[in-house]
Amino acid sequence: MLLTATRRTLSLGTVSSVHGRCSAFTASRVLIQPLRPQKRTLSLMAAASQPDDVKRVLVPIGNGTEEMEAVIVVDVLRRAGALVTVASVENSTDVVCSRGVRIITDKMVEECASSSYDLIACPGGMPGAERLRDSAVLERMVRTQKDSGRLYAAICATPYVFFEKKGLLDGKSATAHPAFSDGLNDQSKVLDRVVVDGNLTTSRGPGTAFEFALSLVKQLYGEEKAKQVAGPLVMHPHNM
Amino acid sequence: MLLTATRRTLSLGTVSSVHGRCSAFTASRVLIQPLRPQKRTLSLMAAASQPDDVKRVLVPIGNGTEEMEAVIVVDVLRRAGALVTVASVENSTDVVCSRGVRIITDKMVEECASSSYDLIACPGGMPGAERLRDSAVLERMVRTQKDSGRLYAAICATPYVFFEKKGLLDGKSATAHPAFSDGLNDQSKVLDRVVVDGNLTTSRGPGTAFEFALSLVKQLYGEEKAKQVAGPLVMHPHNM
Ligand SMILES: [Cu+]
Repeated sequence: MLLTATRRTLSLGTVSSVHGRCSAFTASRVLIQPLRPQKRTLSLMAAASQPDDVKRVLVPIGNGTEEMEAVIVVDVLRRAGALVTVASVENSTDVVCSRGVRIITDKMVEECASSSYDLIACPGGMPGAERLRDSAVLERMVRTQKDSGRLYAAICATPYVFFEKKGLLDGKSATAHPAFSDGLNDQSKVLDRVVVDGNLTTSRGPGTAFEFALSLVKQLYGEEKAKQVAGPLVMHPHNM
Repeated sequence: MLLTATRRTLSLGTVSSVHGRCSAFTASRVLIQPLRPQKRTLSLMAAASQPDDVKRVLVPIGNGTEEMEAVIVVDVLRRAGALVTVASVENSTDVVCSRGVRIITDKMVEECASSSYDLIACPGGMPGAERLRDSAVLERMVRTQKDSGRLYAAICATPYVFFEKKGLLDGKSATAHPAFSDGLNDQSKVLDRVVVDGNLTTSRGPGTAFEFALSLVKQLYGEEKAKQVAGPLVMHPHNM
């Protein structure tokens, strides 16, 4: 592996040199993240050597996805140790988000269809929520997730534009962005910033994305890990 | 322009169709953002037709930049109407951030050296803060920014690793990530989540990045605009 690793290993070396001073910068998990297509073999090798308790998470994105919601969920879950795959629902791994940030995903969503995930977490943004909704592969994966009892989650426009419209809320209480939450069937929890109902978690917007991501960490890893991750983020005490 | 615009225009068309229902999704400004190298001509044409009150913002990033801090600053400032350029300090526009999110920048920092910005805002993360520090072009730009009285800003590791180490704090009070703030000369404000001292703004980490970005919006556009932008983000009342 040392022979094949390049720039990534160099930067991790630098990270390690400051690792001693701060738990905020424990970047060793980055090594096992799928990074680029040409490094997939390396990533899979690393993943295969992980203990069985590694949590696998899928974060699908498309053109017009809210980049803050996507990146906060990916980053916070990776800080917790999850093996997060960012997958494109577009024709390529090259995605332009809602405010013009351009992200290269780890995979195409079609490449993920036969894998099993502990969590599928869908960011919002428009038209990103519609792009996710219109991916037949993703819809099937989320439906399987829901029916199997594994965790699925959405934030912002997506709980309404994708999940409600495709029958994926199924009587569960949920919330969504204030511009969309009026459309939800169950209005009992729409003012909550994060709503957990069984294996479904929903939330409202970029400003609730850290709380959403930390709730997902808590559900996957427990309260103690969520606190460990939150500390170095310097969360406002009221957002914990 | 219609003849040259492609996928971007298509997605903006979709955004426009929901524009009526929600101020959160006013994406028209995205059209004038520099997006891809091959679209630079279009971007510059659009920029040239902007009124003189357009605020120009530079957000430099490098390998190991904290992707949440970078994306939150870029996105929130674009929501406010700023013309934000994301610039790479690496050898290419292809940057791998601290938790493996891969971002393609609008430009190389060298291409920005002769431009004037209303604000240069530096994200943190390690080793990203060192990568910014080690760019001679960026150091010169930040020094000019400081000396000319225009706004400059940094969050997380960067106020210490870059600004303090290169003499860019210059007696101003500042804060930084808890893992680095002990190293700051002036300790009077290190516990504040956002510190504004003259034309310098500093902040602590991903969890303070929305407050940091909204403070920058307020300084560029005023309090009213900051409130307009904060609303659809669904910020926690305590973070305003
Ligand atoms: Cu940091």
